[in-house]
Amino acid sequence: MIIVMQQGASKEELAEVKKQIRELGYTPHVIHGETRNVVGAVGDERGKAVLQALESLPGVESVVPILKPFKLASREVKPEPSAVEIAPGLAVGGDELIVMAGPCSVESEEQIVETARAVKAAGAQVLRGGAFKPRTSPYSFQGMEEEGLKLLDLARRETGLPIVTEVVNPRDVELVARYADVMQVGARNTQNFALLKMLGQLDKPILLKRGMATTIQEFLMSAEYILSEGNQKVILCERGIRTFETATRNTLDISAVPVLKAQTHLPVIIDPSHATGHAHLVAPMCYASVAAGADGLIVEVHPQPEKASSDGAQSLRPEDFAAMMRKLAEFAAVSGKTLRLPEGA
Amino acid sequence: MIIVMQQGASKEELAEVKKQIRELGYTPHVIHGETRNVVGAVGDERGKAVLQALESLPGVESVVPILKPFKLASREVKPEPSAVEIAPGLAVGGDELIVMAGPCSVESEEQIVETARAVKAAGAQVLRGGAFKPRTSPYSFQGMEEEGLKLLDLARRETGLPIVTEVVNPRDVELVARYADVMQVGARNTQNFALLKMLGQLDKPILLKRGMATTIQEFLMSAEYILSEGNQKVILCERGIRTFETATRNTLDISAVPVLKAQTHLPVIIDPSHATGHAHLVAPMCYASVAAGADGLIVEVHPQPEKASSDGAQSLRPEDFAAMMRKLAEFAAVSGKTLRLPEGA
Amino acid sequence: MIIVMQQGASKEELAEVKKQIRELGYTPHVIHGETRNVVGAVGDERGKAVLQALESLPGVESVVPILKPFKLASREVKPEPSAVEIAPGLAVGGDELIVMAGPCSVESEEQIVETARAVKAAGAQVLRGGAFKPRTSPYSFQGMEEEGLKLLDLARRETGLPIVTEVVNPRDVELVARYADVMQVGARNTQNFALLKMLGQLDKPILLKRGMATTIQEFLMSAEYILSEGNQKVILCERGIRTFETATRNTLDISAVPVLKAQTHLPVIIDPSHATGHAHLVAPMCYASVAAGADGLIVEVHPQPEKASSDGAQSLRPEDFAAMMRKLAEFAAVSGKTLRLPEGA
Amino acid sequence: MIIVMQQGASKEELAEVKKQIRELGYTPHVIHGETRNVVGAVGDERGKAVLQALESLPGVESVVPILKPFKLASREVKPEPSAVEIAPGLAVGGDELIVMAGPCSVESEEQIVETARAVKAAGAQVLRGGAFKPRTSPYSFQGMEEEGLKLLDLARRETGLPIVTEVVNPRDVELVARYADVMQVGARNTQNFALLKMLGQLDKPILLKRGMATTIQEFLMSAEYILSEGNQKVILCERGIRTFETATRNTLDISAVPVLKAQTHLPVIIDPSHATGHAHLVAPMCYASVAAGADGLIVEVHPQPEKASSDGAQSLRPEDFAAMMRKLAEFAAVSGKTLRLPEGA
Repeated sequence: MIIVMQQGASKEELAEVKKQIRELGYTPHVIHGETRNVVGAVGDERGKAVLQALESLPGVESVVPILKPFKLASREVKPEPSAVEIAPGLAVGGDELIVMAGPCSVESEEQIVETARAVKAAGAQVLRGGAFKPRTSPYSFQGMEEEGLKLLDLARRETGLPIVTEVVNPRDVELVARYADVMQVGARNTQNFALLKMLGQLDKPILLKRGMATTIQEFLMSAEYILSEGNQKVILCERGIRTFETATRNTLDISAVPVLKAQTHLPVIIDPSHATGHAHLVAPMCYASVAAGADGLIVEVHPQPEKASSDGAQSLRPEDFAAMMRKLAEFAAVSGKTLRLPEGA
Repeated sequence: MIIVMQQGASKEELAEVKKQIRELGYTPHVIHGETRNVVGAVGDERGKAVLQALESLPGVESVVPILKPFKLASREVKPEPSAVEIAPGLAVGGDELIVMAGPCSVESEEQIVETARAVKAAGAQVLRGGAFKPRTSPYSFQGMEEEGLKLLDLARRETGLPIVTEVVNPRDVELVARYADVMQVGARNTQNFALLKMLGQLDKPILLKRGMATTIQEFLMSAEYILSEGNQKVILCERGIRTFETATRNTLDISAVPVLKAQTHLPVIIDPSHATGHAHLVAPMCYASVAAGADGLIVEVHPQPEKASSDGAQSLRPEDFAAMMRKLAEFAAVSGKTLRLPEGA
Repeated sequence: MIIVMQQGASKEELAEVKKQIRELGYTPHVIHGETRNVVGAVGDERGKAVLQALESLPGVESVVPILKPFKLASREVKPEPSAVEIAPGLAVGGDELIVMAGPCSVESEEQIVETARAVKAAGAQVLRGGAFKPRTSPYSFQGMEEEGLKLLDLARRETGLPIVTEVVNPRDVELVARYADVMQVGARNTQNFALLKMLGQLDKPILLKRGMATTIQEFLMSAEYILSEGNQKVILCERGIRTFETATRNTLDISAVPVLKAQTHLPVIIDPSHATGHAHLVAPMCYASVAAGADGLIVEVHPQPEKASSDGAQSLRPEDFAAMMRKLAEFAAVSGKTLRLPEGA
Repeated sequence: MIIVMQQGASKEELAEVKKQIRELGYTPHVIHGETRNVVGAVGDERGKAVLQALESLPGVESVVPILKPFKLASREVKPEPSAVEIAPGLAVGGDELIVMAGPCSVESEEQIVETARAVKAAGAQVLRGGAFKPRTSPYSFQGMEEEGLKLLDLARRETGLPIVTEVVNPRDVELVARYADVMQVGARNTQNFALLKMLGQLDKPILLKRGMATTIQEFLMSAEYILSEGNQKVILCERGIRTFETATRNTLDISAVPVLKAQTHLPVIIDPSHATGHAHLVAPMCYASVAAGADGLIVEVHPQPEKASSDGAQSLRPEDFAAMMRKLAEFAAVSGKTLRLPEGA
């Protein structure tokens, strides 16, 4: 932290600031400027938020944070990239590009099994599908809940694909963990710290989505909640942030990929479906994500988008998904990632 | 919903759109334009989100929502304003301007009781204080939890002030409800639908804060979650939205007050402390809120802001709060609201 | 500026940073931290932007600006508030609350004269009206240009009200200056530096609007362009910033009033019409602005909003404007400002 | 436009709305809904903004625009993509990927000629360099003006590269046009309509950057200003939008590429330097842009970024630019674009 004193602040005010910095366990260093003084507070950054309160002292103009407040998620603690294993021989963050695909919501046995087969045939390695759905409206379809989890399990047995599915309530963590290979935290729960703490106690990969108004730094602090509870298997997912633009549902912040890669060792994937909200934008954003260095993708696919219970407008038809995957394999190769397509894909 | 067809869409494509609209339970009405056709889908708006998926059909350019998707929160269902009683003879949304004040976090018996006495003496009618704290960093103070609730209870007994305190985990709803007069949902939980549904089953006022990236319409849909479960005692709270501006912690959207008042019968209060993040901005934003028609305020007050465990920079000292309240009473009078200050305030 | 070194940066890298700081004319001060070093660069802040380029040097993690880059606009150079005189005995920034009112565009002699009489009768001290209109669409009405200026002049002669009107092209500065009492710079030209420099050479008040994506600091830098050319008569105008919210045309940042007042001596007014975009939101935002400490308002009034060539939806009818003014006078009194209404208003 | 009536609006109010629609030259079509009526206004969309004013009429709840207000820029008027020729045999929007590169500002003969040679050797086909610089601070370097244009001309003669340079003042259009092969409109001038109209009268390619707070639709309306004056040679450039995220200078909206491609025939390029603000993010964003379907890039390159007069932190060193170009050629090939690198590149 840098504490900036007001122009004309008195010696006594400066002395009081230094005293308070010391009482909080940090060491003050004053730089005497031409028009005002600034004081650096040196010490462990992790608890430094309390220094912000020094803004209340007389003679203080502002308090400016300098260092990153996260630790376990940082490259400085772990310089080499982490690969998170989600099934035997299948890891996000290694050489292989991982594609998770499936419907927004599990709707029926036929729907989920048919989709699972289609995305597997096209080269996806993981099946996605929502059983607990956080919906803006209480009158919208809220998900099949445990029944949906059972259908995901069935689709997994039919295809061998591991499954990723969302958990929205700390109460359901145990239930969802019985079925899921990867537990997803949605954009509305990025700062649901009660949920994050519980997931930090599991030994299971967590797919943590960035919130619509979550900065990169806050996103990494949310990851830090999981890591600091002991679970190191965190996969970060950028899914669009809220901006003034309305041509897309949200604005996909693809620069988040290299920004995150420079700050953290955790793997990073992209969700182009929720970010854009329109099926015709999904394929180009898949290509761009991989070119930017993403470790994987999570994509919505539905056999009949026009009849989907949720998010139909942004779901790819299976044949469009398959065409996207063929082109994606070429981009992955240039990016230094492998995407092996099944024969006939 | 209005379904906009592409220029040159075929008759068959238009027919298919009309067929799907009917299958979803709505009635299609076509307007034949000069360059393209648009189709209105008439029917109950509440479940209409599924119509959005028609964007996937060939020949469709876009789907534009027209009507508001909330019902119980709307002025159309209940034209007259609702007053939410939070203690005998004390209601938010009536003639009286309600001021809730207190520290961000409960830190000790001395701190909370001293603050409670000070804000009461200055004219506040409700004591605020956090026992469960959602903090961005896992290394920051997380609140005193049940111990904090007990101290709030003590402060209530000492002063007679009802208390408002936050609940962050559905698991704790019952516990917090045993102590709180008003249950607060914080900005990070505005779309924590699991939590909202549980609160909807209580018979207790809910102070629902707007999320940092929540639109007015989504905010009212979150209120609708609580209302549709049966609890009609919802108080809305604007507390700043996230924008590009960094001079303030968030940007206080004061126009949300008249926007909400036009759309809903629910009372609306303002939290200027979290919105601005700086103590010197709190008083002017209190005055502006009341002039704009707010029914109340929730303000952070701390006896020693520079030593606060959280949010010190935005907390008023008791004497500054008291001065603000005296001026506020004058603005309230012009706004047609009453704020009665104790003798000697 | 604070230059933050990477963890593990070498001594040589640190030495090179210090050398470059000196070459740019600043004095380096190193603070040795626990995990990394930071270097303060001390010296005149006005040209310090070049220091940002030090981020390119090996071993540098980031460069963090600390001080404000404006000078003439700052409270530090001129602590007491400035009042800008716009006509004999009429100043913005003094005790009197100044209300500028009139149509978005000048459309005809009848329209502008009728409106001028109506707003004067209601208590406005300045007439607004656009002759050069920056419109998003080339197919929209672009203003009456010089003919419009002549009609404004006529309305001024009829009513005695000074006029404020927009200039959009540096080429037209001289022409507009022949007619206008106050020259307005619109939100799309806040960073039209060519225009600002020309206006800085006039001896005439400039009403500078904040851009839709202009930070407070950038806004003051734009004022600094005018001030540094010699014209000290700058009036700042907040008119809403662009956010994700669509219920209003923009989001009125009322907290900009106290934020600006703390940083600059220049007067600050509010434009609630463009900020909200809807007539029914204008009055509450006028009240809130004055309660927050604004020195004045600029409000759109049109005798027949439904027939306006531009911005009809946000224009008040004369009778609604008059009602607003009566209530506004009461709020002004509480705020410590005077708004004298004509007899019969 | 769709005019949404209030619930309970009277027959007379509806009749008045229909009458006004007709008076404005459109044809009203009423859809009778269950709870309210909506009225479609059918007719040429280009001047339809005036319909927005109908919101002022009694009984009207809101006015919702449905169709796109641009015409010449649209795919509907010209379905096939436009290629804009910028030099004999060199076009943006065809099979070739176009890379424009060079320093933010022209600083000296040595600097611009050296950079021109370096970027040509690496495969760039166009030289960029600023002679007129719109700078946030009046105390920052403002560009070499005509002297800079002469140096760009010299570098062009030395290397054969056509040049793109910015014009900021309508007064300078003729001067800049004497030197430039492509005239650039910067992000602060996207809605400087006076400038756009003058550029519309040239027979020269215009590189139009998107403003920081400009929606896609407004961006295309700005292009429409140029097109409607007669100049069809418009190249669109996405360069980042302003959001709450501070890890990057702006947020690069890469989804703007497919969004624009679906709506307009004009070519689209990306500026990753201004968007991200940090050199280490430029290469991944170049790759992502091309994968998303961009027709070209404009990239800042400086021989000594740490000594640059402007934007040093985001400028690539020549050797890093060359490495980026080699990888970019591979991505271009997968995207179906050609990027021919000189021998030895």
